[in-house]
Amino acid sequence: MPNQEKVAVVLAHADARLEESRARLFELLRIPSISAQPAHKADCVKAAEWVRDQLAAMGFTAEIRPTAGHPIVLAHHAGPVGYTGPTILFYGHYDVQPADPLDLWHSPPFEPQLIDGPHGKRIVARGAVDDKGQVMMFLEALRAWHEAGGGIPARITVLIEGEEEVTSPNLDPFLAANRAALAADFALISDSGMWNIDTPALTTRLRGITYMQLTLKAAKRDLHSGMFGGSALNPINALTKILGEIQDETGKIQLPGFYDRVRRTSNAQAAEWDALGFDEKKFLGDIGLSVPTGERGYSALQRLWARPTADINGIWGGYTGPGSKTVIGAEASAKISFRLVPDQDPHEIAESFRRFVTDRLPKDASVEFEVFGATPGIEVNTSAPWVGAARAALAEEFQRPPITIGCGGSIPVVESLKRLLGIDTLLMGFGLDDDGIHSPNEKFELRCFHHGLRSHARLLGKFALGISGRL
Amino acid sequence: MPNQEKVAVVLAHADARLEESRARLFELLRIPSISAQPAHKADCVKAAEWVRDQLAAMGFTAEIRPTAGHPIVLAHHAGPVGYTGPTILFYGHYDVQPADPLDLWHSPPFEPQLIDGPHGKRIVARGAVDDKGQVMMFLEALRAWHEAGGGIPARITVLIEGEEEVTSPNLDPFLAANRAALAADFALISDSGMWNIDTPALTTRLRGITYMQLTLKAAKRDLHSGMFGGSALNPINALTKILGEIQDETGKIQLPGFYDRVRRTSNAQAAEWDALGFDEKKFLGDIGLSVPTGERGYSALQRLWARPTADINGIWGGYTGPGSKTVIGAEASAKISFRLVPDQDPHEIAESFRRFVTDRLPKDASVEFEVFGATPGIEVNTSAPWVGAARAALAEEFQRPPITIGCGGSIPVVESLKRLLGIDTLLMGFGLDDDGIHSPNEKFELRCFHHGLRSHARLLGKFALGISGRL
Repeated sequence: MPNQEKVAVVLAHADARLEESRARLFELLRIPSISAQPAHKADCVKAAEWVRDQLAAMGFTAEIRPTAGHPIVLAHHAGPVGYTGPTILFYGHYDVQPADPLDLWHSPPFEPQLIDGPHGKRIVARGAVDDKGQVMMFLEALRAWHEAGGGIPARITVLIEGEEEVTSPNLDPFLAANRAALAADFALISDSGMWNIDTPALTTRLRGITYMQLTLKAAKRDLHSGMFGGSALNPINALTKILGEIQDETGKIQLPGFYDRVRRTSNAQAAEWDALGFDEKKFLGDIGLSVPTGERGYSALQRLWARPTADINGIWGGYTGPGSKTVIGAEASAKISFRLVPDQDPHEIAESFRRFVTDRLPKDASVEFEVFGATPGIEVNTSAPWVGAARAALAEEFQRPPITIGCGGSIPVVESLKRLLGIDTLLMGFGLDDDGIHSPNEKFELRCFHHGLRSHARLLGKFALGISGRL
Repeated sequence: MPNQEKVAVVLAHADARLEESRARLFELLRIPSISAQPAHKADCVKAAEWVRDQLAAMGFTAEIRPTAGHPIVLAHHAGPVGYTGPTILFYGHYDVQPADPLDLWHSPPFEPQLIDGPHGKRIVARGAVDDKGQVMMFLEALRAWHEAGGGIPARITVLIEGEEEVTSPNLDPFLAANRAALAADFALISDSGMWNIDTPALTTRLRGITYMQLTLKAAKRDLHSGMFGGSALNPINALTKILGEIQDETGKIQLPGFYDRVRRTSNAQAAEWDALGFDEKKFLGDIGLSVPTGERGYSALQRLWARPTADINGIWGGYTGPGSKTVIGAEASAKISFRLVPDQDPHEIAESFRRFVTDRLPKDASVEFEVFGATPGIEVNTSAPWVGAARAALAEEFQRPPITIGCGGSIPVVESLKRLLGIDTLLMGFGLDDDGIHSPNEKFELRCFHHGLRSHARLLGKFALGISGRL
């Protein structure tokens, strides 16, 4: 049958089996594959095996590849005989963020719920959208083609890793060691968002990140604050003083050379973003805030997509139990991350932060740093033909053209794929701003899941249709 | 027999049974009576009952008196028939500080050890010196009199509370409600230190304290730092900025009006302290530091005894687990205490801190405060006759006169006893600066325990000797 009809059959098949697709996603969500926590190591393996089995059942050669950390699922399908379209490398991750603070969840994070919301049913669970839900849209699109479309319609390599939430320490070596197996024309990732529930989007700009932990140490033991207060260095006092100086009153980050490589947003780009009519009042209102922080003098979308940030992600030291303890702690620690824009060098920023702290370090204090991640910001090439295919698939599905947006977060793999495999990435995601990723009660709208599944099925159809030869 | 001889017999008896006294102290140290932690509520009751039983066995009318928190042990002995000396109110506490960080202890905190040190044997356990060891010196001195001196030699009321380490929230009401039962000529407390292991001391000056906790809240949930960084307020950034401004570069505390009521140390007092030859280099060297912090322009002893401080005792917020989590936390908290000197009003300081924080609070942030303690600093009257008796007892025991010192810590009960019962306090303690109270591996030198026991026995002898009538 003509390909156009085939796509319609595949979509109808997916629609009829949406409930089964959702149920399979729930199976995956029930596995607490928290990559940051050693206690969940076996759960990560379990999630990897589950994903492998799904792919194997659709005719992929699928295997678990061990790493120094959590394993990677690697699967391949050659596509139809005589396939002349592009080879697609689909990347996703089966690992999730820690679920704490647990007491803020309305239901257990690893017992997925289907509840009513303003957009119909929504799926609530840790990983609902980031990234299990988005991975499953693609897998279910493959399944629809496998079951109703005559087979997997394109040459596809699937790489699902388990360390994205801990900045993928073992992914780069894996990519470097498996260049041949991963050879592709482009990469496809579903780990980003739509503009809003009615408007699809392709993400073309990502911020990078330098994520560090520091521990400031003073006396060799905890001290009584009455006996020693006024004479002995308090590392929490010192740490707050140093961290409190990172930003000035206008939100400008004070690290030496921090802005040296930051490009000004072009007027054209700024105008395009302004035209999106982003409602920062509402964006903030949804989370209980009313005024933006961050650098003065920049629009909201510039601050979120084109300006770097400094956020302290965690801090601890001294006595943190109930009641009072009159102690001067021996050390104090913090986790801090800098969101970076293209051209900023994440290692240079790490070095600058080290200098910023050590320049301010009181005598007798020592400091230790650990770098958990260092990834540059990136801009995606939007003129590639598969970007056109994705635009068309989304336009057909949503009956309106997708828009081109930035993302304040980091997807380090995009930079790795370019650097190590030489391929560009198509970021087609279906999350919403209020999905609460990394937060309690993370959710994914069933409507987004459904549209995403169908959009992936349509996109696969474009390639089956025979975008001739290498794109 | 003449009293002088009787004292000698009592001391010889105590010496011969030192090992049994130590063993009894170990029994008490094995009870983890941590007042700050609800899980140890029953242990606090157990410690109170243990102390009560000791006193009852020596002929005291002894009882457990419930409070809204942990119970108080109250015991009384009328002394010898015809006793005309002063009535002594002995105060101590059976509760101890939390033992964390546990991993820094070389032995379990509630399994007391007798180990070798530079001054002979030392007792290592949480509470070894603060205050179980010091309380037991007095109880064992009573026991020596009871067993070998013909009975308890003075009229004594013993009050041992269980909430000293959590700023005694229920003590004041108890004192106010039991004025008659607690009537005494003076109070005796062993919860302070010697000048050094050879030099006894009476403590005549104590700092007060205002201890507060604050929680700064921003968004109504945790946020992804990529999605929201650059737009949403980060409460940890805000908290460190505010707390980092508490002290300026010279160590001066920036709270409005903070120093308004602080008296300058008199030249005579400053000279007396200077003459003590306090070695701050060694004081700090013992804990791994080399230079003092705190206010510039004051001697070490002035900074420790006569100048107020600000120490952050604990801080927490965001993700504090292993690895990285790219989160902007919904809230951040800290515990902070201000050590105060006489005339500073602890409630005024609390109010000033509230204002300091709220004046700097970013829009959209809210802050909650909790006050865990507010006690003024105090100076003890050194001309009272029992101070003379204590000087004499210590001089005989140590073969050198005691010196008169200050203490940077707070013993709020001293202020309460004055305010509510109208009595002055004699502070005769036997701790050393390096005992590590409130720290891992807290210890008490067996030699100090022994001297302290004997000093208390001698002091009781002074009263038995008949310092005639009310002092």
